[in-house]
This record gives sequence, structure tokens and C-alpha cells, in this order.
Amino acid sequence: MNLSSLGLRFQEGKLEILDQTLLPHEEKWFPADTVDLMVEHIKRLAVRGAPLIGVSAALALALDQERLEEKAIKMREARPTAVNLMHAVDRMVATHREGKPLLEEATKIFREDVLLCESMAKRAAAFLENGTSVLTHCNTGGLATVGVGTALGAIRMAHEAGKKIHVFVDETRPLLQGARLTAWELEKLGIPYTLICDNMAASLMRTGKISHVLVGADRIAANGDVANKIGTYGVAVLAHHHKIPFMVVAPSTTLDLNCPDGSQIPIEERAPEEVRSGKAPRNAKVWNPAFDVTPRSLISRIVLEDRLF
Amino acid sequence: MNLSSLGLRFQEGKLEILDQTLLPHEEKWFPADTVDLMVEHIKRLAVRGAPLIGVSAALALALDQERLEEKAIKMREARPTAVNLMHAVDRMVATHREGKPLLEEATKIFREDVLLCESMAKRAAAFLENGTSVLTHCNTGGLATVGVGTALGAIRMAHEAGKKIHVFVDETRPLLQGARLTAWELEKLGIPYTLICDNMAASLMRTGKISHVLVGADRIAANGDVANKIGTYGVAVLAHHHKIPFMVVAPSTTLDLNCPDGSQIPIEERAPEEVRSGKAPRNAKVWNPAFDVTPRSLISRIVLEDRLF
Repeated sequence: MNLSSLGLRFQEGKLEILDQTLLPHEEKWFPADTVDLMVEHIKRLAVRGAPLIGVSAALALALDQERLEEKAIKMREARPTAVNLMHAVDRMVATHREGKPLLEEATKIFREDVLLCESMAKRAAAFLENGTSVLTHCNTGGLATVGVGTALGAIRMAHEAGKKIHVFVDETRPLLQGARLTAWELEKLGIPYTLICDNMAASLMRTGKISHVLVGADRIAANGDVANKIGTYGVAVLAHHHKIPFMVVAPSTTLDLNCPDGSQIPIEERAPEEVRSGKAPRNAKVWNPAFDVTPRSLISRIVLEDRLF
Repeated sequence: MNLSSLGLRFQEGKLEILDQTLLPHEEKWFPADTVDLMVEHIKRLAVRGAPLIGVSAALALALDQERLEEKAIKMREARPTAVNLMHAVDRMVATHREGKPLLEEATKIFREDVLLCESMAKRAAAFLENGTSVLTHCNTGGLATVGVGTALGAIRMAHEAGKKIHVFVDETRPLLQGARLTAWELEKLGIPYTLICDNMAASLMRTGKISHVLVGADRIAANGDVANKIGTYGVAVLAHHHKIPFMVVAPSTTLDLNCPDGSQIPIEERAPEEVRSGKAPRNAKVWNPAFDVTPRSLISRIVLEDRLF
């Protein structure tokens, strides 16, 4: 049984991940078949994207089953914000307790993600007209999932359906998932794009060129508030000001119905050096939240694989 | 006669500039006593900041007078957006035509800038309460002028008057004038600050911590629209959404009464590699405007050295 996606592959019993920190200039695969290895890959963002993290965690647990309940706790704690990770780990633990085969369950999770992507991307693509220009933030494509992606999947679907779509890509500081990963995917797909700094989005919207903003999600609270990559909330405020529809595309594995609203979503803070980037004074005090919360009032539409809000 | 500021010095007849592209890790001074040298320094942003560019241009013209009218044209074209440059060059050309001493006029422009800074900074500082937190964008301090600065000058004045002020510093992509220059100045001044990525400003405002946004200006049109470093317009929209006062601090040399409104201000577009930063795909298409325009409707207050709008 072989599984393979843009950023994850399971071949001849070996699980490997594409190190996303090295893209786009280097494509290097690393072993990831223990929980310790996978946790490290996830923490340093070699593996990232809410759906991909969930699938990766399931596969690592399936391949490293000794003292599974302890390892499940470790795996859950790799990153706090994206809830897909918790859902995947819970499923693996439940499967373990039922004495059912773990690799089968992980494989199922992988295949489900491919189908989830296809469904939600198709649904969301229907909202994109021919000749449209779309702004997107962070990376939500094949690298963030094991399928076509969420928001970027929708753009790809629209493109492959023959619609002319131009993508404006927020570089997404501090780690440049837009500049490094989304741009890399769009080049591979042959979809025309223009890279901008995050702080250019407002001016771009003011030109009237942008007809939709599309983003993914790391966790959707029960009331519809959405946690996503830092900067998403700002883009949502700007879209609201410029009367541009703001669409969230995510699988239902990103829903957290136990979480009443966005204020209850834990927001990971990461190391100051990510922001300093070797350029600021060496001891500069930094605030570096990896995510923010967009209130439902700023969201025009949430597209799941089977529902629309 | 010696003149000296944080980024420019004229000593024993020699004009030198501090290369701002190398800050904060390297403090290196370069000769700048011909128009060709100064134009090159300004183009590559070794010398930047609307008021500093104006003063630097005046001094370079005073030291390189042969075929002055031709050189004045070259000098004017070094950068298109900040109007202080055009005003300073026009003054030097007029002085030349009147047969008056050029070095004296340039010295006068230098000294005026010091006084302009002091006046507007003092005026703007009066609006900052004790215990306040301020967000600022780009660099508007001693490096952007030959005095205490514009917006950052106001923060410094408030600090030196004994008020407790915390500064949140937008890193200001693509060239990081906030992370590199504003942080460096604030360290030197001992004013507490926190560095953030531009796309974190919205979340920060949502926490309720920010009580004022303070920025400088590169050109103020007759109707009150303001051109300033790219990202300023977005910050203004965010401040408006969060009901935070948005204050522009600038000298009257930044006014352009011949320019009816912001749509008439030329916006410089710079090289794609500034945005790619070696991280994006090598041929990524980029949009890289160096400035944007904030409409007067989003500005709470414009503080000049002698007037308030």
C-alpha cells in the first residue's frame, strides 16, 4: 500500500515528509516514521497546514504504536491551534482502544482528506467567476493537505475548469508560506500569480482588482469564528472595508463544536527570532502569534465539503 | 562649519552618509559630496526618509555646483514620491539663479529641518498620554530627518517629558525600516518597544492595547490625502475599524499644494527582488509599490510644525 501527496509519502512501509522549510529552492525528504520525528517536523514547520498535520500525525502513530496513549499525548501537543491534529489523534486512540488496525485507520484518514479537499474545492470554485482576481493568504494547497488543498484547491479547480483566474499571493510573514509555498505550487500548476508583501493588500484592494479573498482555517469555533494564519484577521477587516467577499474554505475536520467562540481558541506564540530574521537588533522584544481569530461577522461564507455557512 | 545628524554629517568640508541599508548590524559611513554619489545613495535607500532626502540633496548640490541646473534635474529624479526632495532642489536652484551662496542655503535647510522636527514633535507629543501604547510604521526618527524625527520624534519627546510610552513597531516589509531602523533608534534612546510583523497589527489593535497610530508622510496633497510608506493605508483602515486615532506627523516641507489629491501623487515601484528576498521562486512576478495613499477621511489629525488639521 502506497500513499503519496505533495508533502507526504508512505512507500514500502516507509513514511517520509518533504521539508517545507526548505522550499522552494530545495526539495528534500526526511524520514518521519516515529512520533518523536513527526513531532519535531511539525514543531519546526517542516510539516504544516492543518489538514496535513492531522494526516501526518495519524500515520506516525500507526507506525509507532508502542505505548500509544503516551505518544498520542505527545503528538497532540506538537501544536496547539489547528484542531485537525486533535481530531486525528483522537480517532487513532479510539481505534487503538477498540483493538482495530491502526494503519488501516490512518490510511482511511489520508484518503478521506483527499476526498474532502475535492468536495470543498469544487464547491468553493463555483463562486469564482471567469476572469476574476483572487487574494489568498498563507498556503492552503497540496502542501497543506494531502489532496488538492482548501482555498488554493478551489482556485486550482476553477483554473482547471477553464476559468481565467489571477492569484495575488500575500507573502505571509514571518515564515513566508505565501512567497515560498503558494508561489511554488502555483508555478507547478501554471496558474498566473503576483506576489505581494502583506502590507500591500490594502492598496491592492483599493485598486478594485480583487473580487474575492480566499483563505483556509486552522480551527472553526461553534459560532463560526475562524482561527487561521496570523494576518488573516487583518485581511478580513480590509476586505470588509473594501466590500470584497471573504471566503473561508475548510474541511469539517477543522470544526471544533466544543469551542463556543474564537476567544476560546488557544493561539500559539512562536520564537522571536522568526520575526527578527537576523535583521532586527539581536535582543529586540517581539510579539509573534502564529494565528489570529477572524470573527464570523467579517466572513461572507464558510465552505465545508458538505455544507455552506 | 560642521553639521551632524544620526544619518548625515558635514565635517571639514566633507559630506558623508550613514548607509542605512546596513543597519542595525553595521554602522558604515560613505562619502556623498557629489550629486552622482548622493543620487546613488538615495536610489538604493542608503539615504532615506523624506526630510533627510531633501536636506541631503541640498548639501550635495552645494558641494557640486558645476552645471548645477543639469545636476538639479538628476537630483530631483532620484526618487519620485517624497516631495521634500523637489522642494529642496527648487530652493537650491533659485538660490543659484540669484547668485547667492549655495552652501549657506543648504546649511539653512539643514538647520530648519532640526527646528521643524522639534516643533512638530512637541506638538504631536502633547496628544500622547502617560502610560500609552503607540503603533508606528516605517522609520520616522533621527534617521529619517536631521533632527529628532517626525512621528518617532513625537514619541521621543513624550518619553523625554517623563511619560511612560510603549512603542509597537511594524517591521515594514519589504525593506524592514521598522525592524532595522526604528528598533535601532529606540534601543539607543532606551524607549521600550515590541517588534511585530505588519500582518500582526490588526490582532494587536483588537487586543485594545493600542491607543494611537503615529506615522510620517512623504507627500501631503492639498486636500489632506497622505502618501507614505507602503502599508500605511492598511494600518489606517485597521485603525479606523478599531476606532484608534490615526495621526500623521510631518513638516510643512512635505506639503504639496500643487497636488490636488492623493490620486495625483506618483507612486514609485521598486525592484521585484526586494519582495522575493531570495525566498520566493526566482522568477515570481511581483507588485512592489514603495508607497501608498491614505485618504484624508481615515486620518484623525495631521500635525505640522505650525498647524494642525
